[in-house]
Amino acid sequence: MSGNAMKLVVVGAAGRMGQTLIRAINAIEGAELFAAVEREGSPFVGRDAGELAGLGPIGVAVTDKPLEAFVAAEGVLDFTAPAATVEFAGLAAQARIVHVVGTTGCSAVDDEKIKAAARHARIVKSGNMSLGVNLLGVLTETAARALGPENWDIEVLEMHHRHKVDAPSGTALLLGQAAARGRGISLAEHSVRVRDGHTGPRAAGTIGFATLRGGSVIGEHSVLLAGEGEMVTLSHSATDRSIFARGAVQAALWARDRKPGLYSMLDVLGLG
Amino acid sequence: MSGNAMKLVVVGAAGRMGQTLIRAINAIEGAELFAAVEREGSPFVGRDAGELAGLGPIGVAVTDKPLEAFVAAEGVLDFTAPAATVEFAGLAAQARIVHVVGTTGCSAVDDEKIKAAARHARIVKSGNMSLGVNLLGVLTETAARALGPENWDIEVLEMHHRHKVDAPSGTALLLGQAAARGRGISLAEHSVRVRDGHTGPRAAGTIGFATLRGGSVIGEHSVLLAGEGEMVTLSHSATDRSIFARGAVQAALWARDRKPGLYSMLDVLGLG
Amino acid sequence: MSGNAMKLVVVGAAGRMGQTLIRAINAIEGAELFAAVEREGSPFVGRDAGELAGLGPIGVAVTDKPLEAFVAAEGVLDFTAPAATVEFAGLAAQARIVHVVGTTGCSAVDDEKIKAAARHARIVKSGNMSLGVNLLGVLTETAARALGPENWDIEVLEMHHRHKVDAPSGTALLLGQAAARGRGISLAEHSVRVRDGHTGPRAAGTIGFATLRGGSVIGEHSVLLAGEGEMVTLSHSATDRSIFARGAVQAALWARDRKPGLYSMLDVLGLG
Amino acid sequence: MSGNAMKLVVVGAAGRMGQTLIRAINAIEGAELFAAVEREGSPFVGRDAGELAGLGPIGVAVTDKPLEAFVAAEGVLDFTAPAATVEFAGLAAQARIVHVVGTTGCSAVDDEKIKAAARHARIVKSGNMSLGVNLLGVLTETAARALGPENWDIEVLEMHHRHKVDAPSGTALLLGQAAARGRGISLAEHSVRVRDGHTGPRAAGTIGFATLRGGSVIGEHSVLLAGEGEMVTLSHSATDRSIFARGAVQAALWARDRKPGLYSMLDVLGLG
Repeated sequence: MSGNAMKLVVVGAAGRMGQTLIRAINAIEGAELFAAVEREGSPFVGRDAGELAGLGPIGVAVTDKPLEAFVAAEGVLDFTAPAATVEFAGLAAQARIVHVVGTTGCSAVDDEKIKAAARHARIVKSGNMSLGVNLLGVLTETAARALGPENWDIEVLEMHHRHKVDAPSGTALLLGQAAARGRGISLAEHSVRVRDGHTGPRAAGTIGFATLRGGSVIGEHSVLLAGEGEMVTLSHSATDRSIFARGAVQAALWARDRKPGLYSMLDVLGLG
Repeated sequence: MSGNAMKLVVVGAAGRMGQTLIRAINAIEGAELFAAVEREGSPFVGRDAGELAGLGPIGVAVTDKPLEAFVAAEGVLDFTAPAATVEFAGLAAQARIVHVVGTTGCSAVDDEKIKAAARHARIVKSGNMSLGVNLLGVLTETAARALGPENWDIEVLEMHHRHKVDAPSGTALLLGQAAARGRGISLAEHSVRVRDGHTGPRAAGTIGFATLRGGSVIGEHSVLLAGEGEMVTLSHSATDRSIFARGAVQAALWARDRKPGLYSMLDVLGLG
Repeated sequence: MSGNAMKLVVVGAAGRMGQTLIRAINAIEGAELFAAVEREGSPFVGRDAGELAGLGPIGVAVTDKPLEAFVAAEGVLDFTAPAATVEFAGLAAQARIVHVVGTTGCSAVDDEKIKAAARHARIVKSGNMSLGVNLLGVLTETAARALGPENWDIEVLEMHHRHKVDAPSGTALLLGQAAARGRGISLAEHSVRVRDGHTGPRAAGTIGFATLRGGSVIGEHSVLLAGEGEMVTLSHSATDRSIFARGAVQAALWARDRKPGLYSMLDVLGLG
Repeated sequence: MSGNAMKLVVVGAAGRMGQTLIRAINAIEGAELFAAVEREGSPFVGRDAGELAGLGPIGVAVTDKPLEAFVAAEGVLDFTAPAATVEFAGLAAQARIVHVVGTTGCSAVDDEKIKAAARHARIVKSGNMSLGVNLLGVLTETAARALGPENWDIEVLEMHHRHKVDAPSGTALLLGQAAARGRGISLAEHSVRVRDGHTGPRAAGTIGFATLRGGSVIGEHSVLLAGEGEMVTLSHSATDRSIFARGAVQAALWARDRKPGLYSMLDVLGLG
């Protein structure tokens, strides 16, 4: 970590995602763990954040004073819960720092407050912090728009580990939405989610889904555009659950020199 | 075609498969079209077989006298119909030549007659003449036996063109059967053919199927064996419908020096 | 072919590409073969164009009068040679029709003349008429720009049939160029085309190439962007040599309602 | 861990592989860590083996008395060094237990001593303990034998992370050896490891290698058999470095009820 490394705070530092964020900061050049925050009364306050994350001691004790941490830092990484995130956004605005929000489940009211905080903070918010998945969504929309439904059939294939209990995956549906947006159609009205027995020929303009389950696969997604005599395939493969934490750190580094405002991962990718 | 090329007869020569067989013989070194047979009364009798197949004239006129053709030839390629095939098997036995049978739908009685003919003819019979698909079946059975159900999950994925009206494909089911045989289980009792919505975790020992449809894909099949931290994938891709005709010619060349008997494509692959 | 089908002329109609174009027009709804042109003195003048292309007679005789054909048609498909193409562009301008140019090897002077003709004709010109390959190039450039060289490594993999005599393929190099453009670097200075023995670790910012050869593969290309714990793969697979002819017909249909001008396949894809 | 779980000893318990073995035993049903051994004088003697491996305390202290551990246990997992492994084999023979050996670099003399120990111990020894990779080798040999060199071209493709310093990978070369064995040829005389520029057409009977490098890929290997109009692909993908440890535990469980003898992973797979 050089003297110029970006000083980052992790909130919810003792949780599973908090620990992953601490390890990601540790692994990425240009980022440095400046503080680790837990809620008041947490048994982890005062413990070394590196030890919690399995890195060995790093000399950063967990604190329950977020504002003190924020004002001396440059950014905060936050995968907590809506109420906490709204509060952290306010503090980030006071401290005029970067706030990366991976928290899901925010209400319209929450989002309104986060947007207000973004007048002073640089906030990057996304439901999926993987750079690769976000890029795949953009490329899927472009491809679906360019290759029309008379000649090109779109299919979405995903594979996950044997413990996953629903199908298709949320990311597969997001990719299907991106394809539908590219085509200017409603996914709900055009998706085919089951094929078994006598199906009849494929209806033009539909978007098909297929699901594989097995082993310990973290997440494989492919969008296929199949034409006459040629096929375009766009795929993403995740082999490490840390990609969301890594994406959050990348988002913070990207936002370091921006003006206050509310950004998405597409902005981080330069595709906003 | 050298003087040593194997002299082959195509029966049903004017049909779509007959024409494909004529082109395959033309393309494969070591094989030569010796005669082309159609049924008595066919309007194609007397026409040049090469012209029918789109090769230009090759000096072989279609005949309606199979026995005359067989006795001077070394092998016959036959993708006709059960009744005709039983008759051709008898003639091949008289002529003591090779008879490659890709005909489907034979009854037990038909099969009995074909077996009888194999006392004097060398007969290779298979429901699928592709060398690659037959090999994939054998490898799938081996893999499913070696990698047990407690740790390894088996999935079968297939993709075909948009006009296909049923799912999963016959070949996908054959591969599923091979996997079930390797595991010593019944496919019917262990297959999972639909996943949509809340599925719950994957049940150990099941064999899953997933189907993609689109474009002009001739046939893609994959068998996945997914374990903890590793995956084995066995795939076959067909890009030309001629592979069945080519496999039949290969079978004839293989059988040229064998003793009379009834063989399968596994014998041709040396895996019988 | 409905009464509203676009009336197309194929020039160089008796050549291999001319025949493929005739078959593509025949296969695509909304297009219709209006005339087939060969050079004066060609032995094919007067022959039925459908018969030449293996479709059976279609009532269109090959002519050696291009201007007569052009003035009554709506578009011309041209995969001939630079000198002929320049001349056809002039005639297309006179007839104020669409001119789709797949001809390669045009000089700067040729291109200037084609550009001049595009004041009156709607000309679509590209070195590769496959919609899928052109799209893949655009997506590759976008992805290479979005995913920076510190964290993401770019590799280009291609496979072709056993008869191909050079490596990497022209399309692989085009994809490498697209990636380099996205990264703002020179491909020549950053490409790694051989890895064997002790290579040392991968240098950041390089673009690697790998080549497979075998069987009858028409063309498989993949661009891999490999990051920490995730990978994005963009692929194109060609299974039929007719995709270039089909792309040309699509280009003509797209240009039917445009203003005069010089267009590329990116315009046809809506990505210009 | 039930009362019937197999009691296993890990030697070299404090090393990176030793820790991975401890975690693998912990994760696999039917196995249980009975003892953890380090060399005399190791600073880890007396420490809790679970804590060393990042599992938290499990009540098994590291010991420097292997024989005491072995006589009360059922098997030992050993990825140490040749001299230590030879000694452990002798102790395993005394204790008449299972000895799984992943140690590499043994000399002929070492192997002789291990073989001698296998008169009383059940020893499973392999240079690569992944079940999937071992299976892939067997399937590759079968496929290469079944699909002959006149019609089928064999290519081996591998991808590894950006830090790997040599190419092709050891596993790619093992798969090439398996293919060469299936074909009855020498790999050295038939391998093609570089393709760049004007290569000429592919020589029949060769085995080609292609290498991709990027990101954090742990190990992807594919063997392609490409014929006319069809392709068979056999692949292995590793997404977790623990697969070697898991394979060792599986080998121990398999050997639990065998007679004394020297076994390989092929025996564990039921393919010996």
